[in-house]
Amino acid sequence: MLLEKIKSPKELKEMSIEELKILVNEAREALLRKVSQHGGHNGPNLGVVEMTIALHYVFDSPKDKFVFDVSHQTYIHKMLTGRGQAFTDPAHYEDVSGYTNPLESAHDLFSIGHTSTSLSLANGVAKARDLKQEDYNVVAIIGDGSLSGGLAYEGLNNIVEQATNTIVIVNDNDQSIAENHGGLYQNLKNLRASKGAAQDNFFKALGFEYHYLDAGNDVKEMIDLFKTVKDSDHPVVLHVHTIKGAGFKLAEENREAFHAGGPFSLETGEYLSAGGAGATYNSVTADFLMEKMAADPKVVAINGGTPMMLFSQEQRKKIGKQFVDVGIAEEHAMTMTAGLAQNGAKPVWAVFSTFMQRSYDQISHDLALNNLPGTILVFSASVNGMNDESHLGIFDIPFLSHIPNIVYLAPTNKEEYLAMLDWSIEQSDHPVAIRVPVGKLKEVRAADTTDYSRLNKNEVTQTGSQVALFGLGNFYELAVKVADKLSEAHGIKATIINPKFISGLDKQLLDSLEKEHQTVVTLEDGILEGGYGQTVASYLGDSELKVLNYGIDKQFHDRYDANELLIQNGLSVDSIVQRILSTI
Amino acid sequence: MLLEKIKSPKELKEMSIEELKILVNEAREALLRKVSQHGGHNGPNLGVVEMTIALHYVFDSPKDKFVFDVSHQTYIHKMLTGRGQAFTDPAHYEDVSGYTNPLESAHDLFSIGHTSTSLSLANGVAKARDLKQEDYNVVAIIGDGSLSGGLAYEGLNNIVEQATNTIVIVNDNDQSIAENHGGLYQNLKNLRASKGAAQDNFFKALGFEYHYLDAGNDVKEMIDLFKTVKDSDHPVVLHVHTIKGAGFKLAEENREAFHAGGPFSLETGEYLSAGGAGATYNSVTADFLMEKMAADPKVVAINGGTPMMLFSQEQRKKIGKQFVDVGIAEEHAMTMTAGLAQNGAKPVWAVFSTFMQRSYDQISHDLALNNLPGTILVFSASVNGMNDESHLGIFDIPFLSHIPNIVYLAPTNKEEYLAMLDWSIEQSDHPVAIRVPVGKLKEVRAADTTDYSRLNKNEVTQTGSQVALFGLGNFYELAVKVADKLSEAHGIKATIINPKFISGLDKQLLDSLEKEHQTVVTLEDGILEGGYGQTVASYLGDSELKVLNYGIDKQFHDRYDANELLIQNGLSVDSIVQRILSTI
Repeated sequence: MLLEKIKSPKELKEMSIEELKILVNEAREALLRKVSQHGGHNGPNLGVVEMTIALHYVFDSPKDKFVFDVSHQTYIHKMLTGRGQAFTDPAHYEDVSGYTNPLESAHDLFSIGHTSTSLSLANGVAKARDLKQEDYNVVAIIGDGSLSGGLAYEGLNNIVEQATNTIVIVNDNDQSIAENHGGLYQNLKNLRASKGAAQDNFFKALGFEYHYLDAGNDVKEMIDLFKTVKDSDHPVVLHVHTIKGAGFKLAEENREAFHAGGPFSLETGEYLSAGGAGATYNSVTADFLMEKMAADPKVVAINGGTPMMLFSQEQRKKIGKQFVDVGIAEEHAMTMTAGLAQNGAKPVWAVFSTFMQRSYDQISHDLALNNLPGTILVFSASVNGMNDESHLGIFDIPFLSHIPNIVYLAPTNKEEYLAMLDWSIEQSDHPVAIRVPVGKLKEVRAADTTDYSRLNKNEVTQTGSQVALFGLGNFYELAVKVADKLSEAHGIKATIINPKFISGLDKQLLDSLEKEHQTVVTLEDGILEGGYGQTVASYLGDSELKVLNYGIDKQFHDRYDANELLIQNGLSVDSIVQRILSTI
Repeated sequence: MLLEKIKSPKELKEMSIEELKILVNEAREALLRKVSQHGGHNGPNLGVVEMTIALHYVFDSPKDKFVFDVSHQTYIHKMLTGRGQAFTDPAHYEDVSGYTNPLESAHDLFSIGHTSTSLSLANGVAKARDLKQEDYNVVAIIGDGSLSGGLAYEGLNNIVEQATNTIVIVNDNDQSIAENHGGLYQNLKNLRASKGAAQDNFFKALGFEYHYLDAGNDVKEMIDLFKTVKDSDHPVVLHVHTIKGAGFKLAEENREAFHAGGPFSLETGEYLSAGGAGATYNSVTADFLMEKMAADPKVVAINGGTPMMLFSQEQRKKIGKQFVDVGIAEEHAMTMTAGLAQNGAKPVWAVFSTFMQRSYDQISHDLALNNLPGTILVFSASVNGMNDESHLGIFDIPFLSHIPNIVYLAPTNKEEYLAMLDWSIEQSDHPVAIRVPVGKLKEVRAADTTDYSRLNKNEVTQTGSQVALFGLGNFYELAVKVADKLSEAHGIKATIINPKFISGLDKQLLDSLEKEHQTVVTLEDGILEGGYGQTVASYLGDSELKVLNYGIDKQFHDRYDANELLIQNGLSVDSIVQRILSTI
């Protein structure tokens, strides 16, 4: 097997074109075997087998620098740079991350998981090269989907301005995570149809030397193209047409399903754990929004390139113009939401916590400063969300809840969540964000009749003494468990509070606690620093009350076990109870 | 005087072209008089007198919706929409803000001060119109300089996707705040030179119907152009060439100086308070960086469109390739900085606090996640910085200091500041941000020999008892004043601490305070919520110590008096002392 001979790109360079074609097949087979058994970004990697082999054949990594956008398409790159065993030996499947990772290899320059960054990173890498008067190629590989992000455009502009060697490979498979949206994509379509000859070429307009290759899945043609531009003394764009999911028919035919996923059947293309039955917070959100939309044409859902988190392709067709996918462009999603709200629509932007941070200024300057009634649904904001270091959802409370005017809500069950969402959509006084619960859908089967226009009113769900427990959102259940333990094992009936509001304090309630309590405990499903609990500790700083804040330590935890991480941070019922007892 | 007759656009519409030309002159004269006496964005407004009059003549605001990018070029718009007195009567100069302001007029849709947002806002306004099945024009007015921001590109893409009426006016005066940078600008230059006929038209590439007008300062030609596209049923770009500073020769000849400024002489074009003599934190930064650059070609300064905050035009010429102005593109500035640091350069990005928030994800995902040794110099982070609600610099501690790996430093004088900057440039272990002091340069005439690689080591500048005062950065002097008052008036010798590190706590020091102290006070020049003090209160939450946190309340304060705002937040020596006394 040729693949197993490859310990570094060196072995690759000694192969004939015929051997490379055999290697292409071996690499694709290994890739298919792993993703079908282990899961991962299947389609994107299947599409770049030939490109990646040609890259390492023509260029000299790590002397030449590769920067892969998003870097979820680097499985083949890893196979060719000393990490083949992680793809050929199931016992070693977990050895590598799903993204480039400098801790794994000198061939990986950055830890990357968000889109549209590669061109700016490459621009910096190339500028450093120029300052040091060194001589090598800097190559950025970016997909068509990532080009919708404004940062990619800023990168293109500045690469041209720098005017030295930077090779931009546009890997155009005519697909983002879902379908593409935006004026650029008609231009790419025209360029593909005309084999690069269409007028008003976007890349030429920005000043690039431009080359088009239709046969992006032909290793020989890729090699020839790369050879023609290697060592260029000025910026070049290679617009390469590839097939997402290439070599696996079922993936080629269903490109949205085969962007990424868990294990699947190579025979049927069905995912083995297909979501599972029963409602989820995602499905109840979709159902609720579709009902609202049917009743009111002003209700509109916005999403930036991950529409499947809310609606299936069929649902999107049904909804029509009341759903807007802006492409991977979170800044635009937020600012467009502000514009929608200003002109009397009822916009709801659904976004993952880790990607919401891409629109901080738009949340602050466009939505919050103008105090517009847009709704942000924050998904996967939890230690139990995505656990790659580049996709953590635990930083949203510090960066969102301290922006003036924002009302940030933390529901603890389905009924609370939908009541908050309904209130947010129908009110017109505040920008509102809702931290969508993470985990199994919890139904209490009783309507939530809370008037959320009474800002910062917390709910006391059990009145006790000595200890007051604030259980925020996902961690409300933990507060209840701690209270139960205090009661059962120590005869202490604690007060339990469901704060509901993250972005402000119930000062009346806090002022009242001193009378019957000695210790206040806050529990939040995010980082401790800059979080909700610290605002409580500060407010009570000159009181007689002891305050214990619980949250996650400030680190980019990578591929962690959520339960272990919680225990490391003292977030177990027993250790919380023990610490409480030491204060009273 | 025709200008005084105009109470609303209605009067304008009844005028003849000849009268409009007289109005142009009257408006420009009033504008020149006000900006020369009162200060403001002089050049940008001088350039759009004719455009603004033509806009209000042809379109029907507020039915038709105008969205002005940055909105610092809306003085004429204000003159024509019921706010003329604020430009004709010096006693009323302060009646209006320098930006669009919904509180002033129904003709102003948004409070805006950051660039590149207008197209996305307009896209949302137009989408709401379509959802409501209403019928009017949505017009976005954006300068060439603002087109370098990625959000503007995202907006263009999505306006084309929406495919209904949106009229984008590109006000091209071939100048950003300083000169433009980026591949786009060669395209705009080609289009100006060819009167819009050049190949590879950037706007056509994105799918726009495109019109070019060279005579952007001819009111008749502007009116004719606007009439041809009014009520278009699809997106249109009007590329209009105007003269920045038009009608005031000295401004036309010195476009960078005449972007904005204070009162100036109409005869000589000299600003009346030209910076003043003596060194400032900006000038010592520039001098220090130029020295470092001369000694080490790997040192490079990055800025996003406001180079004059660091270097004069002459200094920029002298520095050459070791200074990079990326245009108004803060995201790229940060991510390029990460790329520079990864490849061994020593990058220093200088940015205003209010604009740094435009790169939150780039700070977190590109620089911090990769733990790269780039330096961020955060300017105007203070209640004494810019005081327009859209330009506040008081939110940086909550959003920056809680990002993992970031070392955020708060110097209290020149020597500390330069020692921190020198350490940051030469070290290779951490991303570092420095909160550049605001106000008069303070020199202590003694070198700071602190080893800043000992992270989170605070400096105790006076050892006392009962009360411990943490004076962060700009507020260190306030801590000293409070200590003096406690000593003189109440015989209490307080401990004074210069924390220096914002992003982490000196736990050893905090643990030691309980022995001799009863009250800990934190003072920071930013918002209280999510700030440094609250991390102290949280850490000490289960101690016997009382903690008093001082900072600014969470609001978008607008055109405030800094001293009044401080007093409103209890930040006066006397009220701090009184509160301290109540706790001991």
